[in-house]
Amino acid sequence: MYSSIHFQSKPRATTNASKPEVIEKLKEIVGAENVLVEPEKVEPYGADAVKEKFPPEAVVFPATTKEMSEILKLANAEIFPVTARGGGVGYTGGAVPVDGGIVIGTDRMNKIIEISADDLYVVCQPGLTTWDLQQAVEKHGLLFPPDPASYKDSFIGGNIAENAGGMRTPKYGVTKHSVLGLEVVTATGEIIRTGGKTVKNVVGFDLTGLMCGSEGLLGIITEATLKLLPMPEATATVRASFKSMELACKVLTKFTPEGLLPMAMEVIDQNCIGAIEQNFAFGLPKEAGAILIVAVDGFKDEVEKNAEMIERILEANDGFDILRSRSKEEEDKLWDVRRAISPSLMKYGTLKLNEDVVVPRSQVPELIRKIEEIGRAHNTFVANFGHAGDGNIHVNFMCDKDDSESIRRARECVKETFQLSVDLGGSISGEHGIGYVKAQYLDMAIDLPTLEVMKGIKKVFDPNGILNPGKMFV
Amino acid sequence: MYSSIHFQSKPRATTNASKPEVIEKLKEIVGAENVLVEPEKVEPYGADAVKEKFPPEAVVFPATTKEMSEILKLANAEIFPVTARGGGVGYTGGAVPVDGGIVIGTDRMNKIIEISADDLYVVCQPGLTTWDLQQAVEKHGLLFPPDPASYKDSFIGGNIAENAGGMRTPKYGVTKHSVLGLEVVTATGEIIRTGGKTVKNVVGFDLTGLMCGSEGLLGIITEATLKLLPMPEATATVRASFKSMELACKVLTKFTPEGLLPMAMEVIDQNCIGAIEQNFAFGLPKEAGAILIVAVDGFKDEVEKNAEMIERILEANDGFDILRSRSKEEEDKLWDVRRAISPSLMKYGTLKLNEDVVVPRSQVPELIRKIEEIGRAHNTFVANFGHAGDGNIHVNFMCDKDDSESIRRARECVKETFQLSVDLGGSISGEHGIGYVKAQYLDMAIDLPTLEVMKGIKKVFDPNGILNPGKMFV
Repeated sequence: MYSSIHFQSKPRATTNASKPEVIEKLKEIVGAENVLVEPEKVEPYGADAVKEKFPPEAVVFPATTKEMSEILKLANAEIFPVTARGGGVGYTGGAVPVDGGIVIGTDRMNKIIEISADDLYVVCQPGLTTWDLQQAVEKHGLLFPPDPASYKDSFIGGNIAENAGGMRTPKYGVTKHSVLGLEVVTATGEIIRTGGKTVKNVVGFDLTGLMCGSEGLLGIITEATLKLLPMPEATATVRASFKSMELACKVLTKFTPEGLLPMAMEVIDQNCIGAIEQNFAFGLPKEAGAILIVAVDGFKDEVEKNAEMIERILEANDGFDILRSRSKEEEDKLWDVRRAISPSLMKYGTLKLNEDVVVPRSQVPELIRKIEEIGRAHNTFVANFGHAGDGNIHVNFMCDKDDSESIRRARECVKETFQLSVDLGGSISGEHGIGYVKAQYLDMAIDLPTLEVMKGIKKVFDPNGILNPGKMFV
Repeated sequence: MYSSIHFQSKPRATTNASKPEVIEKLKEIVGAENVLVEPEKVEPYGADAVKEKFPPEAVVFPATTKEMSEILKLANAEIFPVTARGGGVGYTGGAVPVDGGIVIGTDRMNKIIEISADDLYVVCQPGLTTWDLQQAVEKHGLLFPPDPASYKDSFIGGNIAENAGGMRTPKYGVTKHSVLGLEVVTATGEIIRTGGKTVKNVVGFDLTGLMCGSEGLLGIITEATLKLLPMPEATATVRASFKSMELACKVLTKFTPEGLLPMAMEVIDQNCIGAIEQNFAFGLPKEAGAILIVAVDGFKDEVEKNAEMIERILEANDGFDILRSRSKEEEDKLWDVRRAISPSLMKYGTLKLNEDVVVPRSQVPELIRKIEEIGRAHNTFVANFGHAGDGNIHVNFMCDKDDSESIRRARECVKETFQLSVDLGGSISGEHGIGYVKAQYLDMAIDLPTLEVMKGIKKVFDPNGILNPGKMFV
């Protein structure tokens, strides 16, 4: 119901959250200094990376699970919307209070409680950035693998609630694969504990998995126990050009027969390459129809051997202009091309509709070929790049933010791209989630009986529908 | 409510499933030849590895999802219990119809539908053994990592429903980490589809994770899409003895600083060693207080290097009698000791209560020390072995099947061991699940608000409580 008003903003809603006695009680729970109500102060909490503004009536910053529970008990008794917010950098409005009510900022719950190198886990609160978490465990020689692009700004609580992806998925999986246990406050203020500190745990239903990717609709995460791995000694990257996306993607399947599982396999399409060259003049080959970047990690010797093997495989399968990193600096340089995409694309429009569809990776060439057709049919520039190794492609339809007709066309492209992804055996989101932005498209990917089960589960956790209303289901 | 009658059997229950018109309808749905009702024919479907007999009123073998749906619609309309059964080799009675009703055998739904080496997945039905599945994908150079001990007999559907573990968990995780998507028939006969064919998929709640380990209480799996990996080129194993369990387990933490993540880390305690030597005379060192077996996989060169590194680490950390495999044959021989445990233990009693508690792995020595105290206090022989790398220990209390007093004592040991495991930061089951055997202990590990959420979810999938009654919750 909201996506039709995309790129607009909404006046501040008024719900029971604005009642003076409610505000008073919120201040009693967390302290007056931790409740924001002034319009100019709450405004920044009304948007995420989608940039549409839905200001909350109040922003509340609890410091403890007990405070979180009391806030939710109050909200459930008074019936007003509650939207949890981490770093606020999502692409589907998950942290945005579209129906008003309060935003709960987890900023003060930002402590690391325990790092166990012996048992390979970390216990932390939801409000620290994934980058800070990674830095902290790295000091103990440990790796927390999930690496969504926004990891320097996104909070770990948000990453769990959105089941964030990233580049290292081919080897390490997504965020849910690194979550062992959670403490969660449900909409009724109950504190539940899912999973534990061990990978093996088959005691009752797996609520940990259910919470990952539940987008704040089932409960608010107040503590997480995350799985860690030994930090690999080294990484290496190989980059190559191909005449076409078909040829680039064909290589993805050539590593398996050699027993190789790269950590990351990223692809850049011809339109992206053109945009990058126009802006940065890296000197990429003119005949490049696609660029493939493949990275491995592990022990130093092994990494070098595997990088050489990748180089050979790329060469034997129509790759050209092949570059292999021999140092951290060279590796960083090879990735510059990837980092140059987003700024370069902004020359093709003042507004970028950035989608993240996913298909079985063998379908990526077909996906991109047909997306280009869709773009041409709707007179919209489109450029594609992303995580080819797991079939998760970022599709960027460019339009003019002051031209509603160009936006309408781009949105039509998005809709057709979603249907295309489902038709190719994939789905409408690989890592950004549904939020309010994709809610109207959910039934393209999920059939009615399955949707009914999801809605039933929502009712178990949140009988009065106070948690993140207006998201996922419409 | 059932565990007090452990090791007894129950006369055949009578529910609406026995009504002649119900049996008639079941025969209409699947064909008369696929419905068993004769007492001698249904009897084998009344027990699993627990060996207690609860014969069903009928056993039904559907061939399609549609038939499965019709059976469940009938059961939900007539209200009779339905218990899904895979290989029937579970340790907690998950496939056993304790309240009567029908057993659904998935034996006829045993097809592999698609193997995609390009996209690294397999689509299959629930009724083939995990071994058969592994053999089939291996022909394509692919690995399905989950390896529960019973994998030659257990069905993949049962492994998913129980979220089975195994030895390779330290590197590859448990079954749920290899499940991408499921087709499930709920108690009301609705066919739902969870997840998909891709690792990245954040569209709606993660019902795939929820189904893994749901023990047949939420729905019956009719199709699974499973994640595959490139088959590693080689494996190698190193075995060492240690003076004590403390010293053996201390080594587990020494691999991380070297950047090494072994595939498997198995431990055998002193009582097991004594039992093995008495029966097989392998010539294990007399002063061995524990044996540690560590395995790695990967490329041949890398595996050899890593095995050498493990050898050095074991040596530097008080290991002795260290043996490293140089061939597949040598490797098999090193594992003979592990395989000898179960037959050896049967000399210490005619009945083995085999538990599978889990703790953070640094707590394994403390766990085993205190379990020995518990055994002594209750005059019960106990021997421990298992998956030290993930803290999942098989605790074996030995008793006499004809001596109810010895069984009572052993069961008291089990109960205290469960509480101990929870107190040490772990839980009451790492891989066997709850079933009816551990149902009365569930609240040791799961608090009341979390249990209420689980029961609420059960109601969403199964409003009339027909699916696997008498399990998990009591």
